[in-house]
Amino acid sequence: MARTTGSDGERTEAAVREAAVNLIARYGYEAMSMRQLAAEVGVQAAALYRYFPTKEDLLFTLMRDHMQGLREAWEHSRPAGADPARRLAAYVRNHIAFHIGRRHATHVSNMELRSLSPDRLTQILRMRTAYEKELRSILRDGAEAGIFSIEDTGLTAMALIQMMTGVIVWFRPGERLSIAEVTETYLSMTMRLVGARMATDTTAPRVPSDAQSML
Amino acid sequence: MARTTGSDGERTEAAVREAAVNLIARYGYEAMSMRQLAAEVGVQAAALYRYFPTKEDLLFTLMRDHMQGLREAWEHSRPAGADPARRLAAYVRNHIAFHIGRRHATHVSNMELRSLSPDRLTQILRMRTAYEKELRSILRDGAEAGIFSIEDTGLTAMALIQMMTGVIVWFRPGERLSIAEVTETYLSMTMRLVGARMATDTTAPRVPSDAQSML
Repeated sequence: MARTTGSDGERTEAAVREAAVNLIARYGYEAMSMRQLAAEVGVQAAALYRYFPTKEDLLFTLMRDHMQGLREAWEHSRPAGADPARRLAAYVRNHIAFHIGRRHATHVSNMELRSLSPDRLTQILRMRTAYEKELRSILRDGAEAGIFSIEDTGLTAMALIQMMTGVIVWFRPGERLSIAEVTETYLSMTMRLVGARMATDTTAPRVPSDAQSML
Repeated sequence: MARTTGSDGERTEAAVREAAVNLIARYGYEAMSMRQLAAEVGVQAAALYRYFPTKEDLLFTLMRDHMQGLREAWEHSRPAGADPARRLAAYVRNHIAFHIGRRHATHVSNMELRSLSPDRLTQILRMRTAYEKELRSILRDGAEAGIFSIEDTGLTAMALIQMMTGVIVWFRPGERLSIAEVTETYLSMTMRLVGARMATDTTAPRVPSDAQSML
């Protein structure tokens, strides 16, 4: 997502980040050199170090900004009310929309934790835990209100997050299903998985399941 | 999983595979050199090429054997009968047991597809598709028999596989939950996700399916 406005420095930094995400997603962080990255962006290697003094600074910045972006997207889409089913639906929609638009950055964030220094790994894991805690809190509130039936809040949160993030592995725009269709199907699966007992926003009756099966 | 029996050659080959899985999981395939791998195993680099003429031969062998192992494990655990709920339960149990015991190999198989040549990528993807097709077939049979309610067989299969494989990301033996507890919880979540109308291993009556649908 290179910016088209801003100073030359900002444009260069954005171009470096974008190229880094793509190179790391393609070859892995350890295999990418700063020299290769500079060549990709069309600058001298020395210029990169103005923005990112070390290669690990660059990786950390990419991961931190990814998690901050996810957190901010959730702050904006979180419903005002306390209804657990509505909050869960908003969480699912935001999670899928955010990740489906950032396949490479998600890939990098999930796969390259191994390359962070211990301090920085801790920082990123804290951000992830805070985000996952929001989901656990929704699940727990729903279970306590008798709206959801779940065996284990922590396991259910991990299962849902991995199921949803997994969309980036197989989803390609322009194929059989639109993002909206995928999202609504994942939302239905999520609501059944948590044993949800109330309807939030159905308008049409459900299509019989055998009519939708595709194989 | 180095073998303790077999010829010297077999033992060396097993040691090479095990070291390769660990190095690739740690640094990524592109970053691992055959020289580094030879040093890790304690042999000359030239000796490696006796077993694996190219680095990609090694990667392909690891991935092919992983998928063959998964396929064989499923052949052995697949129930004789046709009951979709029992077949689904067996699929879930086998999938989790297989992957939880092979965290690094699973990681390599999922992350390094990008480094295979087109022909070999096609071979591995065919093996994966065949395995996933088994799940789609169980889901379709269950939907047709009115036992499951699912919107989309393909999406449900992907969602379940990613949810289950995701266990390897967070599960560590010896922590809060045993493998058996994790597996049973994932099985309950799976059965609700597919809207299963029969209990396989619950004692409490199920919530009526219309009360489970919420959208």
